[in-house]
Amino acid sequence: AARLALPTMEPVRTPAANYSMVSVAEAVETALGATRPLPPQDFSYIDALGLTLAEDVLARDPIPAYRASIKDGYAVRAVDGPGVYPVAFEAFAGAEPETLPPGTVAYIGTGGPLPEGADAVVQIEDTLDQGADDRGQRLVKILVEVPGPGYDVRQIGSDVAQGEVILPAGHHLLPAEIGILAGSGAVTVKAYPRPRVAVLSTGDEVKDPAAVALGPGQVRDTNRAMLMAAVSEAGALTQDLGIAGDTEEESTAAFRRALDGGADVMLITGGVSMGQRDYIKPLLEAQGTVHFGKVCMKPGKPLTFAEVPREGRAPLLVFGLPGNPVSGLVTFNLVVLPCLRRLQGWGDPGLRRVHARLSFDIKQDPARPEYHRAIGSWRRMAGGDGWELVAQSTGGQISSRLLSLRAANLLLEIPRVSHSPGYNELSA
Amino acid sequence: AARLALPTMEPVRTPAANYSMVSVAEAVETALGATRPLPPQDFSYIDALGLTLAEDVLARDPIPAYRASIKDGYAVRAVDGPGVYPVAFEAFAGAEPETLPPGTVAYIGTGGPLPEGADAVVQIEDTLDQGADDRGQRLVKILVEVPGPGYDVRQIGSDVAQGEVILPAGHHLLPAEIGILAGSGAVTVKAYPRPRVAVLSTGDEVKDPAAVALGPGQVRDTNRAMLMAAVSEAGALTQDLGIAGDTEEESTAAFRRALDGGADVMLITGGVSMGQRDYIKPLLEAQGTVHFGKVCMKPGKPLTFAEVPREGRAPLLVFGLPGNPVSGLVTFNLVVLPCLRRLQGWGDPGLRRVHARLSFDIKQDPARPEYHRAIGSWRRMAGGDGWELVAQSTGGQISSRLLSLRAANLLLEIPRVSHSPGYNELSA
Ligand code: NWS
Ligand code: NWS
Repeated sequence: AARLALPTMEPVRTPAANYSMVSVAEAVETALGATRPLPPQDFSYIDALGLTLAEDVLARDPIPAYRASIKDGYAVRAVDGPGVYPVAFEAFAGAEPETLPPGTVAYIGTGGPLPEGADAVVQIEDTLDQGADDRGQRLVKILVEVPGPGYDVRQIGSDVAQGEVILPAGHHLLPAEIGILAGSGAVTVKAYPRPRVAVLSTGDEVKDPAAVALGPGQVRDTNRAMLMAAVSEAGALTQDLGIAGDTEEESTAAFRRALDGGADVMLITGGVSMGQRDYIKPLLEAQGTVHFGKVCMKPGKPLTFAEVPREGRAPLLVFGLPGNPVSGLVTFNLVVLPCLRRLQGWGDPGLRRVHARLSFDIKQDPARPEYHRAIGSWRRMAGGDGWELVAQSTGGQISSRLLSLRAANLLLEIPRVSHSPGYNELSA
Repeated sequence: AARLALPTMEPVRTPAANYSMVSVAEAVETALGATRPLPPQDFSYIDALGLTLAEDVLARDPIPAYRASIKDGYAVRAVDGPGVYPVAFEAFAGAEPETLPPGTVAYIGTGGPLPEGADAVVQIEDTLDQGADDRGQRLVKILVEVPGPGYDVRQIGSDVAQGEVILPAGHHLLPAEIGILAGSGAVTVKAYPRPRVAVLSTGDEVKDPAAVALGPGQVRDTNRAMLMAAVSEAGALTQDLGIAGDTEEESTAAFRRALDGGADVMLITGGVSMGQRDYIKPLLEAQGTVHFGKVCMKPGKPLTFAEVPREGRAPLLVFGLPGNPVSGLVTFNLVVLPCLRRLQGWGDPGLRRVHARLSFDIKQDPARPEYHRAIGSWRRMAGGDGWELVAQSTGGQISSRLLSLRAANLLLEIPRVSHSPGYNELSA
């Protein structure tokens, strides 16, 4: 650190001073307002887990496509009733349906095609094998009266009618949905692709986590691996931009790599605050439009959002997240995550908000709402019928203390003092 | 389907007849009892998202490792108080700490190392730049009294003490935890690896989902892609064993491929019921020990579980799941999923159980508890303070109708008629 005389008599003008403070709600609205779902692409059903459909999927065939037995047993005519019958043949699943001669029954497996002429199934437990007669003809005794035609038979289209919308546009594809696609032969679907998110750490003091020993004044890079993990969890793809030192050149070079790598979103941590070396806001101003540079929240105040236009595709969305690790992950969850969801076609990308009961005392901040990291669990209410979500604090909330996010599953929104604290809300 | 006279006068002896019915709780207990956590392995923190730690992780360095500024501003001696001071030097993050000459202050960035001699920080907003004096010495006016030594300074080890357990054995690694590992240089951790799960569909009627048109009596393979997706969601790795026809040879060959591929678990769908072609139970009896072959549940009755011993490693755990797609995914969630969690070192691998209010009428089954697929959401209770989980049915519950799992997030456990239905529980 060289001794450096400032060249001017003017008060130091730091970049952050130019921005007025927006609320968290305004920040989310602004960021979502600039975010459009990515252009849908074709996906194989095998690669579609976790994606959101961009168009309705219709059933191409009915399910079942043929009258199928629900049981292992005998295909019968319901009117024939109990008695001893010759077993005309065996109708296993996967075989062509045959025709049942009058006065006979056919062995049938679960899923087997009901023979022409048969209209019901008697499960094997309700029958008695009678061996074979003189001519080698197998016989079976039907022990019960069948309730009526159609008994233990799945009719054509009874599970899924041909042409029915089996999955609507906007639906999220979970394992059952992958099965639904497979079962109806919808092997290619139009869905929103996974966004590409480039992640950059900045700071002369920031060293790779694998550094054997830290030099004086150095820290290990917490943010990059953490945010790349959060991006993966959000269903997006990551591009690792490494660490840039506190120079505009290094940040600009990383910026180019994000653009060349086809990123939809870029996350930069550090360098967005009041410091003389906080280059990120000026850099974003030079490249595009900065929509906000200060948010009324604790932690996370320096959160910055910009759009950088480019030819032939949607603007690059750039989030300048505060360097403090907690601030980075909190602002990611509150503001970036909804945008990653919208890029992936979510109709309702906001965080879930529910009321929670605090099991600890809070101190409200005078100026900013606090996002207190907590561990929530549902408990039966004392003397009542209902449940309540009880939140435990994760301890000291200073924004450098990442342990305050250990095992946390809630962000408690604690209003600032000037608001009535009547209840507390959280986003999970 | 050839006409085939059975060679014996004896009543048909189907494999399932040999097994007595166990309860779901017994089935889970038996399967978990045979399941041991996999031997822990070393993982890079970068690949550890979603894993469970097999040993405590200790902080190798304190965080911060040096006295660090919380703000952009000036490093001062708290006793000095307001006044105009020469700016001796600049202490940016990443630089070596210098010594502050008496009667001076130093510019300091957020995260910068506090100079020797300084004991507090005054944020830049509470200062006024005074330009330079005749000799070019920069001057700054400190406007406020600092509350005391240590103000806006993070002391060494204040976030994390050296040697502290930052993450205990058994902890799940989510994004914050990845950051915690990175930040403390724990770049290699001992964790439970992802189990390898081989998935096989069986049935002569079962065709690849991509089949352009189905022949008579054929169905598309719903189970394999659906279960592979469920296995991935559970954090495990998949091995695709394809489709085996209804012969012992094809199933045995698939079985070999699972063993050769190093599978920890094998999932087989179909062929476990009462049918003449249901080869799976006899095959498992020949290869190892079948622990149960019938479970008192609807759907899922034919669920089968076996251990197949092998040299030099834990037995292969084999689940014979019913062929009906709904039965396959329901039994996966209720019985297989806890085992996949235990293999991955979860201390508490069971499903969460909570009470839910039904928004629809149920018909209880006379013989078996039913696992009704439902969509649950938390609602504020009318006239009360609490919340309740309200469950909507997904419609017709026949076990071939996979649409009954569309968007479902609950399995309602509906007791059989002989039990008092006082309340209903669910697992999610
Ligand atoms: N005068 C004045 N000063 C102010 C504020 C103000 O109002 N007035 N606001 C606060 C707030 S208020 Mo908060 O979110 O509400 O808690 S963040 C915030 C902070 C944001 O500063 P920023 O420019 O974003 O980040 P910087 O690069 O300075 O780093 C910040 C810290 O994080 C560490 N760090 C960086 N990167 C990494 C990494 N990859 N891994 C691990 N640690 C890392 C880095 O060592 C440093 O300790 O400035 C403060 N200073
Ligand atoms: N007499 C008697 N008969 C009985 C029972 C009984 O008590 N007594 N119990 C029931 C119950 S009761 Mo239930 O879980 O409580 O609802 S399952 C169940 C069933 C289990 O039979 P199983 O041997 O497991 O399966 P099979 O191979 O027969 O197939 C079953 C179905 O699923 C389809 N199918 C298979 N694989 C796939 C795939 N990959 N993709 C798509 N569909 C597939 C296949 O076409 C067929 O329609 O047999 C019944 N028969």
